[in-house]
Amino acid sequence: MFQECFQHAARSIWAYAYDMETIHLRVRTKRDDVEEVTVIAGDKYDWDRFNEERPLVKIAADRFYDYWEAAVKPKFSRFAYLFRLRQGDETVYLTEDGVCDNPPPPVAGYYDFPYIHEIDLFAAPEWAKSAVFYQIMPDRFANGDASLNPEGVQDWGETPAADSCFGGDLKGILDHLDHISELGATAIYLTPIFQAPSSHKYDTIDYKKIDEHFGDKEMLKQLVNACHSRGIRVVLDAVFNHTSERFPPFQDVLRNGEQSKYADWFHVRTFPAEVKDGIATYDTFGFYGQMPKLNTANPEAKQYLLDVAEYWIRETDIDGWRLDVAGEVDHHFWRAFRQTVKAAKPDAYIIGEVWNDARPWLLGDQFDSVMNYPFAGRALGFFAGEGADGRTFAEEINGLLMRYAQPTNEVVFNLLSSHDTPRVLTQAGGDKRKLKLMVVFLLTYIGTPCIFYGDEVGLQGENDPGCRCCMEWDEERQDRELFDFYKLLIGLRTSSPALLSGRFRFLHAEAGDARIVYERLGDAEHFTVWMNPTGEETVLEHAMETNDWHDALTGEHAPAEDGVQRVELEPYGYRILRREL
Amino acid sequence: MFQECFQHAARSIWAYAYDMETIHLRVRTKRDDVEEVTVIAGDKYDWDRFNEERPLVKIAADRFYDYWEAAVKPKFSRFAYLFRLRQGDETVYLTEDGVCDNPPPPVAGYYDFPYIHEIDLFAAPEWAKSAVFYQIMPDRFANGDASLNPEGVQDWGETPAADSCFGGDLKGILDHLDHISELGATAIYLTPIFQAPSSHKYDTIDYKKIDEHFGDKEMLKQLVNACHSRGIRVVLDAVFNHTSERFPPFQDVLRNGEQSKYADWFHVRTFPAEVKDGIATYDTFGFYGQMPKLNTANPEAKQYLLDVAEYWIRETDIDGWRLDVAGEVDHHFWRAFRQTVKAAKPDAYIIGEVWNDARPWLLGDQFDSVMNYPFAGRALGFFAGEGADGRTFAEEINGLLMRYAQPTNEVVFNLLSSHDTPRVLTQAGGDKRKLKLMVVFLLTYIGTPCIFYGDEVGLQGENDPGCRCCMEWDEERQDRELFDFYKLLIGLRTSSPALLSGRFRFLHAEAGDARIVYERLGDAEHFTVWMNPTGEETVLEHAMETNDWHDALTGEHAPAEDGVQRVELEPYGYRILRREL
Repeated sequence: MFQECFQHAARSIWAYAYDMETIHLRVRTKRDDVEEVTVIAGDKYDWDRFNEERPLVKIAADRFYDYWEAAVKPKFSRFAYLFRLRQGDETVYLTEDGVCDNPPPPVAGYYDFPYIHEIDLFAAPEWAKSAVFYQIMPDRFANGDASLNPEGVQDWGETPAADSCFGGDLKGILDHLDHISELGATAIYLTPIFQAPSSHKYDTIDYKKIDEHFGDKEMLKQLVNACHSRGIRVVLDAVFNHTSERFPPFQDVLRNGEQSKYADWFHVRTFPAEVKDGIATYDTFGFYGQMPKLNTANPEAKQYLLDVAEYWIRETDIDGWRLDVAGEVDHHFWRAFRQTVKAAKPDAYIIGEVWNDARPWLLGDQFDSVMNYPFAGRALGFFAGEGADGRTFAEEINGLLMRYAQPTNEVVFNLLSSHDTPRVLTQAGGDKRKLKLMVVFLLTYIGTPCIFYGDEVGLQGENDPGCRCCMEWDEERQDRELFDFYKLLIGLRTSSPALLSGRFRFLHAEAGDARIVYERLGDAEHFTVWMNPTGEETVLEHAMETNDWHDALTGEHAPAEDGVQRVELEPYGYRILRREL
Repeated sequence: MFQECFQHAARSIWAYAYDMETIHLRVRTKRDDVEEVTVIAGDKYDWDRFNEERPLVKIAADRFYDYWEAAVKPKFSRFAYLFRLRQGDETVYLTEDGVCDNPPPPVAGYYDFPYIHEIDLFAAPEWAKSAVFYQIMPDRFANGDASLNPEGVQDWGETPAADSCFGGDLKGILDHLDHISELGATAIYLTPIFQAPSSHKYDTIDYKKIDEHFGDKEMLKQLVNACHSRGIRVVLDAVFNHTSERFPPFQDVLRNGEQSKYADWFHVRTFPAEVKDGIATYDTFGFYGQMPKLNTANPEAKQYLLDVAEYWIRETDIDGWRLDVAGEVDHHFWRAFRQTVKAAKPDAYIIGEVWNDARPWLLGDQFDSVMNYPFAGRALGFFAGEGADGRTFAEEINGLLMRYAQPTNEVVFNLLSSHDTPRVLTQAGGDKRKLKLMVVFLLTYIGTPCIFYGDEVGLQGENDPGCRCCMEWDEERQDRELFDFYKLLIGLRTSSPALLSGRFRFLHAEAGDARIVYERLGDAEHFTVWMNPTGEETVLEHAMETNDWHDALTGEHAPAEDGVQRVELEPYGYRILRREL
């Protein structure tokens, strides 16, 4: 066995409390290198009386590794443990002190899970596990109140430029909730709505005022109430990494320099705060001098922002916050933010914008979720890119799944496109068949899916500003067939618990073969999803033990013969089969 | 190259801010498998303008792996990066997305260090980096006030039993500060001193009262003041995982069951709280029914304990807390504890009792340090065990060093023995020469060393209760030669910055050879330590570029000839050489 590849670490994604009774243990080994992994666990204060063995199950494989998992339920909320690994007649033991041929006496050098604390559990809101999100940029969604239009508003539907304004507003969203309800989305995420000079509003001037072109607090209340009465949750965008240069405290710093009482609210490297040769003397978002970075460690600035977070929950009953550029803000701030937000609304949902592996923010003390751009990258690369290879795709997806603990995977914010990427249909080269495969994958995968407004009616657009085009409200110009497809898949997801938290596993994912089959296995139902991301018709076969599979969308029986399921697929076709358990 | 062995992870011990300008990056490769590792780092918002390459240096090797490190100073407190690894003419790139033959375009899939936040730095107190600790069990150190003696006190020096009381007290410590000063220790750590029924006091009844047999608050103040005037810091023991069953809130729970206002201060599984068949219906320390576990997540219990932590700092100016059974207490509590303690005294030192790999508590938000029992295990195994092998020892020590970030390694609480282990001389089979080698290692190694009272005068004793024997104050019965040895080595350490934070590296550590040489390389001085943990005389040789080495203890010149340093060592002998840079 390649002992160099063994991986486990106490108190991490390799060993975490899933709930108050259960600890998940994961072990990594080199791919196809180990036959059997067993955990030997016991109470370190009375090993002889309380110890047990339990096999780990291989749950995933990526390019280099196999991943094994077991759920252990210790009697006294704690245990010490080591692993036994076997290949043929070679057996070794993995402890915190290393790998050895014989198990050391309990419990010196063993791994330790000291105690399951409820307060340390990763506890995302239940509703987020079954939500389907719909992301809206208010300026581009619908203009419901022309009296709020900014000067220089462009005609609805014109090609957007970086500084375009189209006059969309909160009333426009309120007016079109039927569209969202019909689609089946159960939550909306609004990009920023507070007073800001740009149309995207990621440069806040006043965090406690709805942008005058979007509406006012009463309108937001009305919108949230209307959503809630339809069973739709509302999440707003918190831009706490930086402000607009027109944010009054920063204006004060520009005027009064080091003497400003807000001097420490920002990261000014040298006074005066100014932009010289294109580089600001203060830290900024990117290199944008007009977006000064906030010092979230300054106690007053911190309290100000925490008050903002709490204010909008208390005043308008919103259901959570999406956190802009969250990775660049300090961890202490996010811990306090979580405490403030959860105190105001225990089931608020907190989603950080972190494009990278976000483990440091997903330990239970900061975010519930992050925008899963790595998911988008893998899905687009496979379904819309060249040379799709099932094995590589499975390795990539499994690698992502193994980044996070299962409770995180259940609520990670999966998306295919957003205001910061080209639209998904554009990335699919305009090929709706490829788009549909991606949507099937998104909606049958583990995690909380989010659909960017307009993707469901066939909008296209390259990266910002192209993707931020106006919503199409003329049904004649909407792709209604596509809309019905989204609606059907969303309906399937929201009515199928196994698609939310059932075990995800690839059943067919071979090198040199683009076709894939995967399953979602829940307590009461079992799905298999069959996909053909190629331009050729095909028949996919996979061994199946039972003959009780039905098409999940049509209800038609899908017979298995001699223990083999044969599924015919058109070019870029898919089929979702379901059975009850 | 064995790509399966590559290891790096953003925002972790593999990538952490060392100070406000510097980020340390570490990469792991299979041992002796890679020739060259380079980081390519740049600003993700303007890669073309701001990017650089920097080589990583191999800093350690353990059984399976080489470890590489570089310090990067990004211009704007942030960077994205990937690594280039080379062996012969094979070159590959390591990114967050995996290993590839060609570097992907910046910065998709790159690792990311989003921003250096001062508040997120690991910031242990400066004084702890140069401190030498002396651990005292007050009941066993010195009896300074016989009027405080408990009933049934035993004669000083009798063999201790589990329930012995010897009448030691705070006045006794005050009376013997000359001993500690002469030894050269700069800090003392007292095991618990608050009101408790046992003599070890790990079962608190009243957290705000000094145990009546130890003294009172005034006496503690007097002791702390006297220590401070000698330049000695004082750290107390916080037993916050559990209490005595006689702790009044628990008594209230026993009396009033679920109706008690303290019902949630503990983890009562089923009421009434009682012990049935040896197992309590409430969670306990170990299986001790008389030590009920506190629920540190209960807001009132939490606030009570935080008040205690703050109270003793405010009232008596103590310099920190050692945290008993710290791993079994929740992380939220320890974060709040750190904030409370550091607010009361910014340079207070916080040391957790965690016997295992303690990474989850050493991220900067909880502890400054942990009791380094794994260090004790490795040192005892090598110097006092059978079959000492230099290569294995170096692998084990390097493995420990690579568990933690450098700022942690500089203040981790290294010890050879404590009240919870056999005494070090006993573990050395009574062989003072072995003991001395261990003490040389402890005092020339990186981290904050701690000496258990009496080890310096040759006390022996098996595990509790044996190791908790009375301090020997009769100079005739003290091993004064040993005391002078400790004093000499402590003096060398405290006067040599390179022994505190200089780079630690093994120079000689071969398989089948017990002899070792290692170096500590600082900015202004350079040490080499030569050790012969065998019963045979030996001559150790190692290539040295300069001929300016002197014995650090005697000042005698240690000539190198033809670029080779030859050091003669007696059985179990050692030599410490020093040069100025």
